Amino acid sequence: MKAYMDYGAAKPVDQAVIDAMTPYYSKVYGNPAAFYNIGFEAYNAVNEAREQVANLIGASKGEIIFTSCATESNNLAILGIAQRYKKRGKRVIISEIEHISVINISKELTRQGFEVIHSPVDSDGILDMKKYKELVNNDTVLVSVMAANNEIGTIQPIKEVAEIAHEHDAIFHTDAVAAVGQIPIDVKEMGIDLMSLSSNDLYGPRGVGAMYLRTGLRPKPHMIGGGQEGGQRSGSENVPGIIGMGKAAEITLNTMDDESKRLTKLRNRLSKGLLETIPESYMNGHPTKRVPNNANIRFSFIEGEALILSLDQVGINASSGSACLAKTLEPSHVLRALGIEHEYAHGSLVFTLGKGNNEEQVDYVIESMPDVVHKLRAMSPLTPKELK
Amino acid sequence: MKAYMDYGAAKPVDQAVIDAMTPYYSKVYGNPAAFYNIGFEAYNAVNEAREQVANLIGASKGEIIFTSCATESNNLAILGIAQRYKKRGKRVIISEIEHISVINISKELTRQGFEVIHSPVDSDGILDMKKYKELVNNDTVLVSVMAANNEIGTIQPIKEVAEIAHEHDAIFHTDAVAAVGQIPIDVKEMGIDLMSLSSNDLYGPRGVGAMYLRTGLRPKPHMIGGGQEGGQRSGSENVPGIIGMGKAAEITLNTMDDESKRLTKLRNRLSKGLLETIPESYMNGHPTKRVPNNANIRFSFIEGEALILSLDQVGINASSGSACLAKTLEPSHVLRALGIEHEYAHGSLVFTLGKGNNEEQVDYVIESMPDVVHKLRAMSPLTPKELK
Repeated sequence: MKAYMDYGAAKPVDQAVIDAMTPYYSKVYGNPAAFYNIGFEAYNAVNEAREQVANLIGASKGEIIFTSCATESNNLAILGIAQRYKKRGKRVIISEIEHISVINISKELTRQGFEVIHSPVDSDGILDMKKYKELVNNDTVLVSVMAANNEIGTIQPIKEVAEIAHEHDAIFHTDAVAAVGQIPIDVKEMGIDLMSLSSNDLYGPRGVGAMYLRTGLRPKPHMIGGGQEGGQRSGSENVPGIIGMGKAAEITLNTMDDESKRLTKLRNRLSKGLLETIPESYMNGHPTKRVPNNANIRFSFIEGEALILSLDQVGINASSGSACLAKTLEPSHVLRALGIEHEYAHGSLVFTLGKGNNEEQVDYVIESMPDVVHKLRAMSPLTPKELK
Repeated sequence: MKAYMDYGAAKPVDQAVIDAMTPYYSKVYGNPAAFYNIGFEAYNAVNEAREQVANLIGASKGEIIFTSCATESNNLAILGIAQRYKKRGKRVIISEIEHISVINISKELTRQGFEVIHSPVDSDGILDMKKYKELVNNDTVLVSVMAANNEIGTIQPIKEVAEIAHEHDAIFHTDAVAAVGQIPIDVKEMGIDLMSLSSNDLYGPRGVGAMYLRTGLRPKPHMIGGGQEGGQRSGSENVPGIIGMGKAAEITLNTMDDESKRLTKLRNRLSKGLLETIPESYMNGHPTKRVPNNANIRFSFIEGEALILSLDQVGINASSGSACLAKTLEPSHVLRALGIEHEYAHGSLVFTLGKGNNEEQVDYVIESMPDVVHKLRAMSPLTPKELK
């Protein structure tokens, strides 16, 4: 039995998406900037994809900028807005549990003289709104708070966060990679100014991302060059990739309601099963305010990496945290921010479910894990005798 | 008859490349950073692609950084080197005829306080070495001169340019997008420190590029995030795209010799045929020191855009300059640098030949063009009576 449950790290691309991309590799291969028919065709197809992405998030077509990945969108949004609008203020606020790209980008802002503040979260990973309100001031140029966390799945009160940012004339950006496709996101209704999106997180191809950019905002471009994407992102358009992301967005829009219900049920079955059968296991993150596909479970006295390798041997794939950090072996800054001790943070396992998962696989994981956990605990000097 | 001769703007992706990529969309879809088998498989495949790209240019595997496009490679190389090594000096030298991305990136350096110098070219588009030697001084941190020009095809004496840069302890970067795959490039033998590469220019997928980074150099990262690609380029790896670029590099290495000979013959037939049959037509760029696939021909008294649209109607696709600039309707800065007057630069047509072209197509273009040119000249008030 195979049970891939690391959809947050990488998703297989939908066959319908591959089919939509294929003609753009070797048939409609024109450069969208070219002045002839197969160039125009490519240009029109890119704009159709723009509309498909816009439709998923309640934006208009002209507000979507295609990039090479969500990390690039974060670079463009955060560096670009802070630099362009620095006259509005020098303070930038991010949550304590942002994706590593947002954290590292904000370090660059610190080097450039901005004052970067990490707004804390409570023990469930929800932004502490009282403290956040105290931190936003009229010197704040940008607030960046993710819509849902990629490790613990916690959903943030984005609409309120944006509102408070706007009261202080600050611009609001959200990294919505872990949220879009899992929960409804409407940029207008939520007051989002900029939003980062990833194609692969919608079962589209890797190497493509997008940024929602509210009409009227002009971040300083991050990728400088020929002025593609309305001057906001230079570089010849990755036409097949963009078409793929558009198709993936369209499919997501049509299937999200049902799929989210299905995943919520599977996820609840999984977490209930594991927590009930494995002693000293705990759920990380908020019990209910979390994206449907995420279960993050902490097993005391073991190391996440050993757990992942052991599970791989029985066909189960999960993650010890963000894939983007998997090889650093650092404990997750997200779990640390929740107040979880270093040694316990290390023994956490992130399941992110997806289209390929079913009840049978969930039950297989519930059956297989107690043994794996027990064996690893038996080897650990930290494990109390009664658990060995 | 169809005759697509704008391979410099966009190339169809090789079927063998598509076949190599396909498994990585929905079978080996693991994140290369993941700690389990399909992650390791993806990681190894990316490294194999790294080796394939390295082999094409005489580099070692660890010197290849995958990016999202050549424009990104140019951003990383030029901004990253100037910023990292700014203590070495404030002068940056680029040629007058660089790709628009290099020109626009260097404008950002000017804003940052660097002194950017445009080193001039002669009327064939070859770097004026005497003037270049005068311009490089010990305050020079970076020299960026393209290996071959994307519009006129002129090949620069890269090895000598690098040597002189190194005499002054300057770092040497070359944008080799128009050269790699057309002429042999060996980074070690030529003394190149950094080199930008594009996947699509090797008949690989768009949305991928690479940078050769000589061991020991550490530009300041342009894409900040999770630290992928040895910390030089963050963002989850575009695995299928990278595999595609690797395969394309491998194919190029095996076929370049024969294909370059074939294209040289076709290109010579094309330019000879057009120059002989159309009055007031001239070759732009160097007569022999040019990449095999490029013919850039100037037709007096007509507008490039009208020419391109008229040719499209008879199935012929070419370009009026760089695709990256096609829609600006500005005259080419490259042709202007060669000393060609504004109005004549406008009437230039760039043919870039490729795998799909054959003698029959070339002859079709030679047969079709005189009529098209004649009709457009007949409409122009600039055309002298004897040509109408």
